[in-house]
Amino acid sequence: MSTVERSRSAERIERDIETLAGADYTLSDEAIRRYAYTPVYRNTLDYFTRELEALGFTVSEDPVGTLVARNRPPGEKVFGVGSHCDSNRNGGKYDGTMGVVTALEVCRLNEELGFGLPLQLISFLEEEGSGFGQMLLGSRIILQRVSEEELREKFRALDDGRSFWEHAEAAGYEPARWREAIHVLDDLTGWIEMHIEQARVLQDTGNRIGIVTAIAGYVHADVVVHGRGDHAGATPMDLRLDPTLVLAESTIELERLARVAGEGTVGTVGEIEVDPGIINAIAARVRFSLDIRGPVDDAYRGVAREIAAFAEEAASKRGMTAEYKERQNLPATAMDERIVSALEAAARETGEPYMRMHSGAAHDTMCVADRVPTAMVFVPCKDGISHHPAEDAEPADAALAAEIILNAIRSLAP
Amino acid sequence: MSTVERSRSAERIERDIETLAGADYTLSDEAIRRYAYTPVYRNTLDYFTRELEALGFTVSEDPVGTLVARNRPPGEKVFGVGSHCDSNRNGGKYDGTMGVVTALEVCRLNEELGFGLPLQLISFLEEEGSGFGQMLLGSRIILQRVSEEELREKFRALDDGRSFWEHAEAAGYEPARWREAIHVLDDLTGWIEMHIEQARVLQDTGNRIGIVTAIAGYVHADVVVHGRGDHAGATPMDLRLDPTLVLAESTIELERLARVAGEGTVGTVGEIEVDPGIINAIAARVRFSLDIRGPVDDAYRGVAREIAAFAEEAASKRGMTAEYKERQNLPATAMDERIVSALEAAARETGEPYMRMHSGAAHDTMCVADRVPTAMVFVPCKDGISHHPAEDAEPADAALAAEIILNAIRSLAP
Repeated sequence: MSTVERSRSAERIERDIETLAGADYTLSDEAIRRYAYTPVYRNTLDYFTRELEALGFTVSEDPVGTLVARNRPPGEKVFGVGSHCDSNRNGGKYDGTMGVVTALEVCRLNEELGFGLPLQLISFLEEEGSGFGQMLLGSRIILQRVSEEELREKFRALDDGRSFWEHAEAAGYEPARWREAIHVLDDLTGWIEMHIEQARVLQDTGNRIGIVTAIAGYVHADVVVHGRGDHAGATPMDLRLDPTLVLAESTIELERLARVAGEGTVGTVGEIEVDPGIINAIAARVRFSLDIRGPVDDAYRGVAREIAAFAEEAASKRGMTAEYKERQNLPATAMDERIVSALEAAARETGEPYMRMHSGAAHDTMCVADRVPTAMVFVPCKDGISHHPAEDAEPADAALAAEIILNAIRSLAP
Repeated sequence: MSTVERSRSAERIERDIETLAGADYTLSDEAIRRYAYTPVYRNTLDYFTRELEALGFTVSEDPVGTLVARNRPPGEKVFGVGSHCDSNRNGGKYDGTMGVVTALEVCRLNEELGFGLPLQLISFLEEEGSGFGQMLLGSRIILQRVSEEELREKFRALDDGRSFWEHAEAAGYEPARWREAIHVLDDLTGWIEMHIEQARVLQDTGNRIGIVTAIAGYVHADVVVHGRGDHAGATPMDLRLDPTLVLAESTIELERLARVAGEGTVGTVGEIEVDPGIINAIAARVRFSLDIRGPVDDAYRGVAREIAAFAEEAASKRGMTAEYKERQNLPATAMDERIVSALEAAARETGEPYMRMHSGAAHDTMCVADRVPTAMVFVPCKDGISHHPAEDAEPADAALAAEIILNAIRSLAP
């Protein structure tokens, strides 16, 4: 189908990634640390701008700094590719950035091979939330899923406590025009984001490409168990109200419920807080967090309901009380089957091992999917390590992804 | 057997306790906070000194400040009664102090009733460790279970970091003569300490008196489980190494093992530390503490061995590793059966409900028992609350204890 020279793509992708891991592009010597309105973030946008302008793209930024590059004038239909190029504060070279670099490679190949596909590259602002503690901020602003009060007052820089608004203005942007960011997606006929997987499924199954069929929805919640703080030595087993046992039973039950639910459902106890938390005292109170996700809303939401009921019942059986309180939830996002199929056909064509899978992690594509048919492509990252300087991925896999994305878009073109 | 007017004893005990809860006797407005070498501790020793001298006792202090009061000259045999009158930093009126007050009441009754029993009251220094972070410090010094280097250098005031030695000298003591403190126990034919129970056994069983048959020994240990920190959303249930599940299984197994072991064995997970401890990350590592106690060394030590093996096995079954590491252990201390029987006979005589029990908490009596036949008497404290300003106990129960202790000593007299 294509005449892509994959090793050349891999070399260019590696060069981009290694360049963007240099001292001009990160605030830390030991990790990639890059977020909105810092000089190193500016340098990163400038790098992509130069590379894209060299390909004949027109590059602009939305009123708060999401980068948009097109090879067609506004109003003409284009296919979208991209990701984000900010990092978490102790990040690696690949999360986000490899997706933008791969999108850039798609644009390069399109020009080199003379395909003439109408493309728009987007690099979303502040996906990681490292600047203002707000995940998916750029894509949420585009979707108008924020309020002006949040941008003016509530969202504040982790570094200095000044508002998002103030920082955006200081960086030369016009946050007062933030509502116009909605037009970034106006001309898109479709969207494909490439990203490292951030887990071990591809590595453990020996696949080089994951074609994402859905992005998991989730429930974040807390359970607080009220026991009775007693002397650990002086209180017989039969006279205890020990909330750590409800924690224990609930942790085991959550694993069982997630397995029974299937459909990619997962459940995790990630935070545990014991009060008073000293060796010789039975806890008076335990709080634990629940992260319950999956691509099928009914499945993971069922687990959330069942574990809430289980914890309350387990506490009650032991003479205690437990309260379940939801922090947040977001429904699963289905990918567009037409784009998924096109990606699958293009992947099959390469002869390389690929699989359909869902994304357990959230991505900007969840916002894009609200208005545009979308899909995602994953490449493996070593041992699933992400959000860490040890993050590692293969430029050759990204080159393969670029080829697959390019050919999928080509096959979808009207 | 006796002609004790119990309500009068209760009134005197209440007066002593309320006096010692006054502003001259605590560093805090909201709690009893009293520890060695503070003016309020000095005032407390002075109070007991005045009361005991009024009974004709000779009062002295050992080289670091343990108070010793006798109604016989040195070299003559005496029976010991007492406890400690320091508190933890956020303490109540009863822990320790009620034991010394009750011992004082035993001395008063002995004089009033003309029994002429040879008695020695001891109020041990720094049982709670509030001054220098060292529990049972006064009784350990008497037993020579400290080193001079610890006293000179290592034991330092929580308040100002100055050494125990420096503080003792500044308070007018002679720490250089600390080894002479061993003689405090020289003339004792026996020892009985009265203390609040610090748990709910007496309240829940409707007993007013507990006659302690043993003080629990304990093992303090930690288990560290090494899992793999992965993305909570992106990692399928089958690809996880989640150490919180080993924590959960071990917590439930510890409860089972303690119940099966019986003999008063108890086991508690009091501290849980999850790394990284964020809602959307599977833990890389979990540490939890074990407090395993009981009056029968073989029983609770067996539980410690079994839970260590269980945790290692549970981790291994899930592809993880767990390490068990002991922090500290102390064997159980048996009380002297002759004194226990004498107390039981005296308790039976009163017609009030009493029980034999063990002490789950540690007490100065553990040190005394090394050289002298000993026993302890417990009285209930409301809801088992201790080490807290809400600590509450009945002077009438303490009066009953004083009568029982007095009559037991009388029955033991040669």
